[in-house]
Amino acid sequence: MPSLRARFQFRILGSRSAGNGITFKLESGEPSGVDDNTGELSGLFAPERVAVVGATESEGSIGRAIVENLRADFAGETIPVNPNYDEVFGLACYPDLGSVPESSEIDLAVVVVPPTIAVEAVRDCGEAGVRNVVVITAGFGETGSEGASRERELTEVAEQYDLDLVGPNSLGVMSTTSGLNATFGPENALPGSISFMSQSGAFITAVLDWATDEGIGFKDVVSLGNKAVLDETDFVRAWDDDPDTNVILGYLEGVEDGGAFIDAAREASGDTPVVMVKSGRTEAGAQAVSSHTGTLAGSEQAYEAGLEQAGVLRVENVQELFDFAQILSGQPLPDSDDVAIVTNAGGPGVMTTDAVGDSRLSLASFSESTVEALSEAMPEEANVYNPIDAIGDADIDRFERALDLALGDENVGCAVVLSAPTAVIDFDDLARVITDLQADHGKPVAAVLMGGERTESAKEILREGGIPNYFDPARAVGSLDALSRYREISGREYESPEAFDVDRERARAVLSRAVERGDNRLGVEAMDLLDAYGISTPEGVIADQPEEAVAAAQNIDGDVVMKIVSPDILHKSDIGGVKVGVTNEDVYDAYEDLVTRARNYQPDAEILGVQVQEMVDLDAGTETIIGMNRDPQFGPLLLFGLGGIFVEILEDTETRVAPVSEREATEMVEGIRSAPLLRGARGREPADRDAIVESLQRLSQLVTDFPAILELDVNPLVAGPDGVQAVDVRLTVDTDELDSSDPNSADRPTEELDS
Amino acid sequence: MPSLRARFQFRILGSRSAGNGITFKLESGEPSGVDDNTGELSGLFAPERVAVVGATESEGSIGRAIVENLRADFAGETIPVNPNYDEVFGLACYPDLGSVPESSEIDLAVVVVPPTIAVEAVRDCGEAGVRNVVVITAGFGETGSEGASRERELTEVAEQYDLDLVGPNSLGVMSTTSGLNATFGPENALPGSISFMSQSGAFITAVLDWATDEGIGFKDVVSLGNKAVLDETDFVRAWDDDPDTNVILGYLEGVEDGGAFIDAAREASGDTPVVMVKSGRTEAGAQAVSSHTGTLAGSEQAYEAGLEQAGVLRVENVQELFDFAQILSGQPLPDSDDVAIVTNAGGPGVMTTDAVGDSRLSLASFSESTVEALSEAMPEEANVYNPIDAIGDADIDRFERALDLALGDENVGCAVVLSAPTAVIDFDDLARVITDLQADHGKPVAAVLMGGERTESAKEILREGGIPNYFDPARAVGSLDALSRYREISGREYESPEAFDVDRERARAVLSRAVERGDNRLGVEAMDLLDAYGISTPEGVIADQPEEAVAAAQNIDGDVVMKIVSPDILHKSDIGGVKVGVTNEDVYDAYEDLVTRARNYQPDAEILGVQVQEMVDLDAGTETIIGMNRDPQFGPLLLFGLGGIFVEILEDTETRVAPVSEREATEMVEGIRSAPLLRGARGREPADRDAIVESLQRLSQLVTDFPAILELDVNPLVAGPDGVQAVDVRLTVDTDELDSSDPNSADRPTEELDS
Repeated sequence: MPSLRARFQFRILGSRSAGNGITFKLESGEPSGVDDNTGELSGLFAPERVAVVGATESEGSIGRAIVENLRADFAGETIPVNPNYDEVFGLACYPDLGSVPESSEIDLAVVVVPPTIAVEAVRDCGEAGVRNVVVITAGFGETGSEGASRERELTEVAEQYDLDLVGPNSLGVMSTTSGLNATFGPENALPGSISFMSQSGAFITAVLDWATDEGIGFKDVVSLGNKAVLDETDFVRAWDDDPDTNVILGYLEGVEDGGAFIDAAREASGDTPVVMVKSGRTEAGAQAVSSHTGTLAGSEQAYEAGLEQAGVLRVENVQELFDFAQILSGQPLPDSDDVAIVTNAGGPGVMTTDAVGDSRLSLASFSESTVEALSEAMPEEANVYNPIDAIGDADIDRFERALDLALGDENVGCAVVLSAPTAVIDFDDLARVITDLQADHGKPVAAVLMGGERTESAKEILREGGIPNYFDPARAVGSLDALSRYREISGREYESPEAFDVDRERARAVLSRAVERGDNRLGVEAMDLLDAYGISTPEGVIADQPEEAVAAAQNIDGDVVMKIVSPDILHKSDIGGVKVGVTNEDVYDAYEDLVTRARNYQPDAEILGVQVQEMVDLDAGTETIIGMNRDPQFGPLLLFGLGGIFVEILEDTETRVAPVSEREATEMVEGIRSAPLLRGARGREPADRDAIVESLQRLSQLVTDFPAILELDVNPLVAGPDGVQAVDVRLTVDTDELDSSDPNSADRPTEELDS
Repeated sequence: MPSLRARFQFRILGSRSAGNGITFKLESGEPSGVDDNTGELSGLFAPERVAVVGATESEGSIGRAIVENLRADFAGETIPVNPNYDEVFGLACYPDLGSVPESSEIDLAVVVVPPTIAVEAVRDCGEAGVRNVVVITAGFGETGSEGASRERELTEVAEQYDLDLVGPNSLGVMSTTSGLNATFGPENALPGSISFMSQSGAFITAVLDWATDEGIGFKDVVSLGNKAVLDETDFVRAWDDDPDTNVILGYLEGVEDGGAFIDAAREASGDTPVVMVKSGRTEAGAQAVSSHTGTLAGSEQAYEAGLEQAGVLRVENVQELFDFAQILSGQPLPDSDDVAIVTNAGGPGVMTTDAVGDSRLSLASFSESTVEALSEAMPEEANVYNPIDAIGDADIDRFERALDLALGDENVGCAVVLSAPTAVIDFDDLARVITDLQADHGKPVAAVLMGGERTESAKEILREGGIPNYFDPARAVGSLDALSRYREISGREYESPEAFDVDRERARAVLSRAVERGDNRLGVEAMDLLDAYGISTPEGVIADQPEEAVAAAQNIDGDVVMKIVSPDILHKSDIGGVKVGVTNEDVYDAYEDLVTRARNYQPDAEILGVQVQEMVDLDAGTETIIGMNRDPQFGPLLLFGLGGIFVEILEDTETRVAPVSEREATEMVEGIRSAPLLRGARGREPADRDAIVESLQRLSQLVTDFPAILELDVNPLVAGPDGVQAVDVRLTVDTDELDSSDPNSADRPTEELDS
């Protein structure tokens, strides 16, 4: 089959070139070594030759189901492999992959053998030169320690042979372009432009069964299984490069590598919407995830921040997942968020308007000429302002005229057309009018033809025009809202984190002192760390003798604040370990008193000295908190909030995954509910927002440069009208990480980091 | 037809007795005069003889549609009335109602004549002794001033003849028990136990068309139209007394009389759930309502508070409206909020768990014996803790055993059963098992059989058992959540507002002074008003001479606060009209200074004097705000929040319609986000919550007793550890209302008020 071969080779070349394309876009400028397992994955979704390792005719077996599904529509060649048979469903069956003629030109092997021999079967794939493998077999990481070690072996084999491996514990993969159904589950999907990955095979089965009836089609479908090799990041990259995928859809219970995922999804979401359910959002859900897949969930805060930064349209339920997918695959993006509503029913029109009020959309104000034209076209009782109520006796011509005028108005970005059933309107006619006018004007439209069976054929007509129809007006508005959200995402200009000129070596020295002391908790003695990264701190010295304290105080203008410095005393104020407004003459006694108190409180506490610090006028500024903790999936998660009750009681905080750009840091500061307090509410002078934003960026750089910093809180960072002051700091360090870390890696400038 | 007549008379008697029943339940003990238009409305929904005034065979006319719809299923007699015909569809047609034999025994007249003669037609009904009238005719209040005056006439005629009148501008009424379809719209609904009222006729048309296909049935349906006479309150009362109505459903754009509605819905919601969409929630929606029905919307805050207090399950969209209606009509209430999840699909199980986490429900913890029994019944890979994952190869027996054990566990209140399609499970079998086990255990269940057409017959089986099925697990959980919300509502013990011993006459005198002064705005000079109602105020005097101020200060312990008192100066602090911490010797000068400042600031300001007030230590307490404004529909709306930024910037307030009970006042105080600050967060002493709650109750009594008070703010009400102090007050009075009000009405004790 020379012609088939020629096509196949062309595809591989295409894939490599696309692979380079991705690498080229990475900011790190690194060679593509880390991306060896990705690329377009065309061998996986558009193979010419597929081997089924473990093929059988045995009733009720998975091996049989796979072969049957492949035989149903697959345009290429299906090759059964099983030492027990010479033939499976009339196809020549080979004892092992090596025995298949031209085995190196098998594009995909589907492995369905028992777990005990699955790793060997995958090794055979590698030996035979097969690069894409789907491991259906279960009994790996999801089943306990034996399975986990089997999974590690599997990963090693895949790395050794550079395999693009899906699974294990996967339902399989599907691609409608080639008619490939390499799953043991559902019938092949309808063709479409949505590519769908799911960490739950059962969810795929359910969705495909339902989607076929709903007329929803797919391009590729992949059941991720345990993600031993290929994970969500790889498929986002592959589908980003796939011209036939218009929407990427995912059901995920976790993300393997948050940083890599953010990079990939951010890249993809510029032209391909990524819509996802990340389940395990709630505490109960996270527990359920852990018992379902054995994954230890990262924090929901990190997922929320990370997915937002990645440009993922995150949804919370199945209905939204498919509502969003459908409209994103069927309708253009609106130029504006201004909606026109055209209805023959006042009440449902009001409900639609309420839904608009709940959304990020707004009701369009028609231009004068539109209102005039509508007034001419409509009867007197009609409402010609938005929502247009063409009233109950509106026939198809009146509806058409109203919608045409609305969509033609330059102030209108999109429209909802709503009709209750009446004697004078035929839903099929209306559907045709909507479809035609949508196409003419090129603005997105959602329909609400309300009724029972009479809507069926109209829905079909609308669906062919890519227009969704709902009974509930709120869903129509929700879908248009998704278009608006995605328009915002696709228009984002990715801004690199700023690289400030900092003193990395000084910071490293501060951290190393902790290692030397054998302590992983640092307090005010680490203020230099902030200073080294350009975060303003009040003038201050840590004295370990009263005389030294007195000398320090004399060098500081005005009274001072004195604080006991001890890694063993976390709540200094509680034991009277802080003195505010100490005059120069009282410094000596204050020193002695602070040390005595500390010793009384905790005789074995290690006391590093007493900090003598310039007084910061707390009343002239606003107390804020900037902080970081490290998430297992997403890495450093920055936090911003106002101090005291705002963080502790109102939980009014914003979080982002570091490194953050200036825009992201600004969003953090502007995003809290209590932000008006920073803008000078109630007669106060506005706080220096730019200084807060810069401090967040500098903190971002610090925690990115030093993975050894596990948590860090600057509390308070006092924001006055002219700058900020970091008054106190507390952090936890991973001393092993710091010990073992290559000084060069910490010295690697931030702008080169890509994950 | 003697037998029919006998039944008819029995019904009327039944209705009267039920009417007395309602009156009996009213707390006012008043005679039922105000309720003359309500009662069971059996003549409306279960008539034996229905006249159609304006009946015709004319193609496309409403008069024809009504007669046809009546002829379709109606068990009683249809009587056409039209002077132009002798016969309509073979039925004898009379020139007017008076000509119909035994016209006084016509139960219901449906009026479809043109607007110009509609009022006269209704008068004829009254003259002929017909008590129930549905006015289909439009062209009333919804169309401008002429229509509005026509509507006023209509109301007068209805009052004159004591008519139960629906409309005008109504689609009509329907009742499946008698096969009555007195609408010009849809085919008759399927029979059911949901009674449905809608302020939008088009919405009824759409809903019935859809509901018939979904298998959702109704008892009564009414299109409220312009609500010239009968409104939502009347139907809530009628359906509360109707044993065949299990759920009351409403689409409302406004409530006519908020107080009466609260009483009726509160009464009904003890045993009949009331589920409502109140549209016009958002600003855009409220504008749309106003252009749709001409109603001036009350504040959304008032609706939110009022509907909550009334025990209405308020929903925001059509999907929730019917999801809630279905489960409330089909399933029992759970004993607890603990959900069991039984699934064969891990991923969708996690999504269900997340939805539980989002809801007021929680995941049940199984008893040890359940876990043991599940462990025995399930394979090793299954999860026997909640959510129960019976895994993909679960057959019907395993599903049955799991669900039986889960529902049998005393820690389980309700359950979600979820199944992805697999080769080993037949959805019809599963539906039967679910239905049987639900019936056996008597605990509510929602199903999520995920799939396309294959779920159709299973859905049917489930529906017969009253069990809803959804594709999206979040909807199943949402429906169970509605049951839980309603269980809480139905268990509420209505608590009367407490009647404190207050000095009504003194309060009246304070308000009257404003009338005498011809001013409707009062400030600190009205502190006595609070004092008269037992709301603590600091000691204080309004002096109009400096000497008087000095004398007053000498009678007060410690330094004093002095404030200019002028109805023309609203923001005293801004002009330096407040002095804090004035010593006795400075009082004279301070007086002069305050008056001078005020005169300089506003030469024509009326200055009533200077208030000399005991210092309240603001730092020892928490500043709160209690206030009231009057809503056009719901009357006095109380507000509570913490002072300063909490109300102004964070908008952290709770509102309730007055009069409030102690429980409601407590909920207001506990309900704000910043409530932990009152409980003594951050090392402060807790504020005296009971004193705040009592102040709210006393304010509630004050504004209920004096409808002339339009708005009132106590800001701040300083809440310390031992009591509260109202430091400042501002109010607006309707001087006409105060003038005209009958002193006896203000003296009527609060406990006698019923609306």
